[in-house]
Formats: sequence, structure tokens, C-alpha cells
Amino acid sequence: MRDALSWRGSTRWDDATAIRAPSARVTPLDRRIADAFQRWLRAADLRLELWDGSSPWTSTSTSVGDVVVSDRWALLKLIFNPDLQFGELYTAGRVAIRGSLERVMEVASRLPRPDHLSLREWWALHARNWNGRLASRRNVHHHYDLGNDFYQIWLDQQLVYTCALFPTADATLEEAQIAKLDLVCRKVGLRPGDSVVEVGCGWGALALHMGRAYGARVKAFNISREQVRFARERAAREGLADRVEFIEDDYRNASGHFDVFVSVGMLEHVGVHHYRSLGNVIRRVLKPEGGRGLLHFIGRDRPRPLNAWTARRIFPGAYPPTVAEVMRYVLEPAQQSVHHLENLRPHYARTLFHWRERFERAEQQVRQRFGDAFFRAWHLYLASSEAAFVSGSLQLFQIVFAPGGSPRLYAAHKCREIASAP
Amino acid sequence: MRDALSWRGSTRWDDATAIRAPSARVTPLDRRIADAFQRWLRAADLRLELWDGSSPWTSTSTSVGDVVVSDRWALLKLIFNPDLQFGELYTAGRVAIRGSLERVMEVASRLPRPDHLSLREWWALHARNWNGRLASRRNVHHHYDLGNDFYQIWLDQQLVYTCALFPTADATLEEAQIAKLDLVCRKVGLRPGDSVVEVGCGWGALALHMGRAYGARVKAFNISREQVRFARERAAREGLADRVEFIEDDYRNASGHFDVFVSVGMLEHVGVHHYRSLGNVIRRVLKPEGGRGLLHFIGRDRPRPLNAWTARRIFPGAYPPTVAEVMRYVLEPAQQSVHHLENLRPHYARTLFHWRERFERAEQQVRQRFGDAFFRAWHLYLASSEAAFVSGSLQLFQIVFAPGGSPRLYAAHKCREIASAP
Repeated sequence: MRDALSWRGSTRWDDATAIRAPSARVTPLDRRIADAFQRWLRAADLRLELWDGSSPWTSTSTSVGDVVVSDRWALLKLIFNPDLQFGELYTAGRVAIRGSLERVMEVASRLPRPDHLSLREWWALHARNWNGRLASRRNVHHHYDLGNDFYQIWLDQQLVYTCALFPTADATLEEAQIAKLDLVCRKVGLRPGDSVVEVGCGWGALALHMGRAYGARVKAFNISREQVRFARERAAREGLADRVEFIEDDYRNASGHFDVFVSVGMLEHVGVHHYRSLGNVIRRVLKPEGGRGLLHFIGRDRPRPLNAWTARRIFPGAYPPTVAEVMRYVLEPAQQSVHHLENLRPHYARTLFHWRERFERAEQQVRQRFGDAFFRAWHLYLASSEAAFVSGSLQLFQIVFAPGGSPRLYAAHKCREIASAP
Repeated sequence: MRDALSWRGSTRWDDATAIRAPSARVTPLDRRIADAFQRWLRAADLRLELWDGSSPWTSTSTSVGDVVVSDRWALLKLIFNPDLQFGELYTAGRVAIRGSLERVMEVASRLPRPDHLSLREWWALHARNWNGRLASRRNVHHHYDLGNDFYQIWLDQQLVYTCALFPTADATLEEAQIAKLDLVCRKVGLRPGDSVVEVGCGWGALALHMGRAYGARVKAFNISREQVRFARERAAREGLADRVEFIEDDYRNASGHFDVFVSVGMLEHVGVHHYRSLGNVIRRVLKPEGGRGLLHFIGRDRPRPLNAWTARRIFPGAYPPTVAEVMRYVLEPAQQSVHHLENLRPHYARTLFHWRERFERAEQQVRQRFGDAFFRAWHLYLASSEAAFVSGSLQLFQIVFAPGGSPRLYAAHKCREIASAP
């Protein structure tokens, strides 16, 4: 597993205090550099601490958290490219956080940044996401084929790896995931006998829910072998195999005509260059009369690449699009009309809170099986994603659509008699 | 009034039969041209009838309606540029419809057309909507200053000239307009004491509703003098003048800080070239903490100019945008996050059905006061708009948004405790 993620180095330090090396010298030049960096961190109330335990923090107020740096090169790398290097160094144990990791990640979004994209971000945005069929397979394998038992440690019982819907704040993760599956079914007005195509079906929870609770006939596509195997076994065990079929294939190979198209948590992995072919699939497979669809995806308020470290280590090839990009490149060319859109951002923050909590409870188990660096990387990924949904740098959109001119409205304010009248 | 709308000609014919001129000759060339045109109309089950009462329609099935043409030049003009000339000739009484005008307009949307824009449409799309401050004033005056008593004939009692929300199909127009005003207030979570800026306030119904039913303090902008006078009188009569202020000024001059921004039915008149300045207004006036807004507008599934006749005679300078255009040019640069969007298309079809019915009941009154051509033009505008919302060539979008990172979700699935947690 260590190889698959190519960690830069192993580490002996497991917490912020342990990574201090009081014997190493901090030169006057180090101090001047640290002073400047501290001034930037100050905007987010973050305290910098150097390898000898000293800090350029002069404020009398309490910091939200301490960023502890283990050596001179770590400091320089962090200053040069914080977006990428924070994750790299944190994983390698050369930067540690004292305080709540998710709170530190949350306030970090307040660090002063130019309004426009940096050259590095601009490049990432424009050279992004060439997810051909081969690259898609490789990228999906990287993340989703870590072993089903790994995800069983910290996801809900049904292994739903997308934003849940919390009907109340004290709903359990299990309840909230079922509420989300049901929300999707209700938004598309699912009826018994409806034919559904799902692209990117994960471990199959939504497809199985549609077959079980709504009597729908579902064809669900996924290119992750491990996930498909798991989903098929579950369908057989629950006696749903005649209604819910899991297909290990690229979504671009979907054929036939369906009442409903759904995709929950796949669009982030498609890449803008391939939106048109996704649109073509939608247009091709959705019945012009009575068809309708739903896209559920992580998005942004403005175009910006995924965080550099996350894109390198966690989700290669991923890009969270804006609503405009999805409209312009997927739904407009597919001649679909938007009926409804909503943003479930705080629900994803809460979902990630649950995942992180479960992941932290399983710390020893994860460290033993995957190593310390792996634990730190995934811990950071969960905490920083949670922070991104809290601070609003990521959004969660659900869009309901139907071919233009559909006589019925889905999900939006409806009045059944109006649909066909006057 | 005739001058203001510059009707091409007056007419003696008031219905389809009267415009026949049986004495005029139909040549063999006329017949060949009519045959070809009939083949095109056939796709929408429309029957062509020439000035001598003859028709190239050969089908034994019943047509949806008859398009009756009064002379050779009318036929040629109609063939050459149906989008513009149908309205021109219908208004002038040189083309008439036998059958239901709105049904004919509805099936006309099924006439075969190229998938891409024509050169004429492309030009209209790209040379569109230079609504500077002067042009805005002129365009608004053209439509909205026809006299409040004209609109009183066929709008609801409160003069709400935008899509209503029908809680049930048999709700009256009055009830449905109040339901819509209330929907807007609920979507933005309006509370007593909230400060609101409304841009493009019509006759003031929403602003007054916000002041009356929610105790909000509203500043409402409008450049239509007649509407502002009417709204002010109403505010004074209802004792709301201390809370609801009507300002006769361009929305770009709005200043101050507000809890809520609303714009219902103005965006269609702004023009894409001016979206960025609308976005600037939103960003400038909305409180970064706790601010939220709503845009309600007629839109499209794909970029296409407004029908050429409607753009010339009814709504100069108007353009119904796509969701992508609004996102990209208004809300993204304004750094707003979309919380909720819904499409109320069938509700607008029903609203227009009510308006048209009332307008038809007042036929004699309108003809006497404004002339026959005016009646026909407005009748066609109402019927064709109704048809556009039935067939799906126009949409009605409501978008709820708030500055990025807002801790609370508006209109979308919410769980109050989640907003601030975890």
C-alpha cells in the first residue's frame, strides 16, 4: 500500500511534540524566514513552531492550532508551495499539527490569497483531467480498490461513499445515508417498474435501494472491480439480482433506453474534457418522453483546480466543477432542462465528520495494516475535506433534469394537475 | 399607442375568414410555393389556406389550426422569415389563425428546424442587448409605461407581472400570485427587520408584501415612472411608506448594505453584456455575513435569441439567459454560492393562460382604446408566451444564493443544527 501511494519517507514522529528536534540549530536567517511566514499564518490565527521549540508567534491571544515544522527544508518547501507541500510534509511526519486538524484546515482557508489563480493553479486547471478510458481505470483503481474492508472500517454499513442527508443533526450516519438514497429516488419520482441506468455505482447501495424499496429495474455501471464484486454478492444475497444488474464497464458503453439516469459522486472523476461524452450518454439513453435524471457531485462556486496534494495523492484526475461547467458542457449539449438544483454542503461537512470520527477510532488498526504515513494522509484528507465543506471552498450539488419540453416537473414545486394543463 | 408600436399597417379583417379575398388570383407558381410551405407546416399539423380559400393540405386528418394568408407578399414574407414575419403579418391582419391561437403557437415549436442557430439568430445572439442606462430606460418605457390601467385589465389585483405559483390547479390567479410572493420570502428566510434591496420592482407587490407580512425594510428600484408612482401611492395608502421605499433609479445606482437582494423578472431585460455589473451590485450591497439573494427570471435550456418579432415589438433589448450564463457572468464573479434553483415552467404557462383569458374577455375594451392591431399583437404575445412555456422553449428559473461560505443554507434541504455544526 505504501508503494501504491509512493510516500516520500517514513517517520518516527507521531505527534507535534515528538517531531521537535531541540538539538538542531535555528539560524538567524531561519528566524527571519519564519517571521515572514508567521505574518501570513497570523491571518488564520495559526502559530508556527520551529524544530527547536521556538516560535515567531508574538500575540498574547490563543492560536487555533500550531504548525510544527521539523527541519529547515520542510519550512522552505512549505513556504514555496503550501498547497502541495503541506500534505506531503504532514504525511511524511515533517510537519505536524498541535490542535484540531480539521479546525486548522478550516481556518487555513482564510489565509490571504490573490483573487485570481496562481500560475500553478492556472496550469492545473487547463492541463486537467484527461480521463480517457485507461486513465479512468487507473485513477479509480488508485482510490477505490484499496480493499473493501478498509472502507468498511469507517463508512456506514452499506458503504455509501458520498454525501449523506441528515434529517436532524443527531441522525446516525446510517440513517442519513438511507435518507439520501431515498431523497434521490423521490427527486426523480421513481416508480415501480421504472428502468434506471446508474453510472458510477460504488458498492451498489443506491441501485439496491431502488430495486428493493421502489421495485425499479437497475443497470449500474462501475469500473472498480472490487466494488462490482461486492455489489453483485449483495444483490444475490438479498434476492435482487433479477432486478439490479451490476456491470463492470465504462459508463460510456451504456446502451438502451431508460426512464431514469442517475450518477451520484462520479462527475468529479469525469473531467471537463469528457463532459460532452457524458452528455451524449445521457441524451442517448434517456427516453425523450418521461425520462429524467439526477447528477450528484462535489462542485465549486468558481473554477479552481482541486488542491494539488489531494489531486496527487488521493484523487488523481479529479476536478470539482462549477454549476456553469456542468450546464454548459453536460446538460446543454444533451438538450436537457434543469428542473431543480440544491446545495447540500453542510450535510457533507457532517458526513465527513462522522467518517473522520470512525477513522480516528480505528487509528491503531489502520496504522498496523497500512502504516503511519497512510494513516496520516487519509486523516488529513478526511479532515481537510470536512474543512472545505465547512468553509465553503467545496459545495455539494444535486441537479435534477429531464429532456427539454418534459410535460412534468421533477423535484421542483409541482402541482400535478398543472403539468399537463392548461 | 399605434405610433409607439409602429404597426406596419392597419387592417379591415378581424378573423380568418374575413381576410380571404376570393377574387384575387392564385397562380400556378403561388400553388407550387404554397405546396412546399405546406409540407413544412405538416410536421406541426398546420393547414395552410390561401387568399382564394384554397389549400394545399391533402391529409384526411384534422389540422390543429389553419394559417390563412391574405396575399402573395404575405406568403413570401412568411416563408422567408417566419420568426419575425408571422407576428408582423398577424398583427397587420394579413395572416390569421383559424383555431386556437395558443395551440397553433404551441405545435409550431415542433416545426423542423436545424439543430444549430441560423445566421440571423447567431447575429441576434451576439449583437444583443446593449442595455446601457439610456437604452434600458427606453426599453422599459416601451413596455411598462403603456398605462397602469391597461395592465389592470388583465393582471391580478396587485399587478404582479411575473410567473405565479399555483398551489393547486384551481387556485385563482390572485391566490397564486400571493403564493409566489410568499415563496420568494420563504426561500430567502425573510425575518422581521431584515433590510431588503429589490431591483426591478414592477408595481411594488413583492416589496409591499415583504413590508406588510414580514416586517422587512425594503428599498425597491425601478426605472418605470408610471410603476413607481403607482407603487408609492399604494405604500402610502397601506401605511407602509416608512418601511417600503420606492426609488425611481437604475439598479446600478443601488448602494448600502442589505440582508437580502431580490430581483423578480428583471434579469431578462438586463442583457448578458451587463451581467457583470449586476454581479458587482450584488457583491457590493449584500452583507458578507448573513446576506442572501434570489433571482427569478425567464430562461432557456440553451443559448438562443428571443423570438425576433417579440424582440422587435414587445420586449426590445430582452434576452432569456441560460442557467450557465447567469452563473458564469453574474453569480461566479460576484462570489456567490448557489443554494437552490428550481424551474417553475408549468406555473408560468398557467399564469399566462389566466392573463390571456382576462385579456380576451376585455377584447372590446382593448380594441376600442388601442386599436385592432394592438389587440392582435398583444393577444399573439400572450398566446405565444403561454405556448413557449408549455412546449419548453422558455423556462422560469428561481435561483437562491448567498456569499460563498455562508454558514446557513437557504431554501435547500436544511437542518438548522447542521448549519453551524459540527
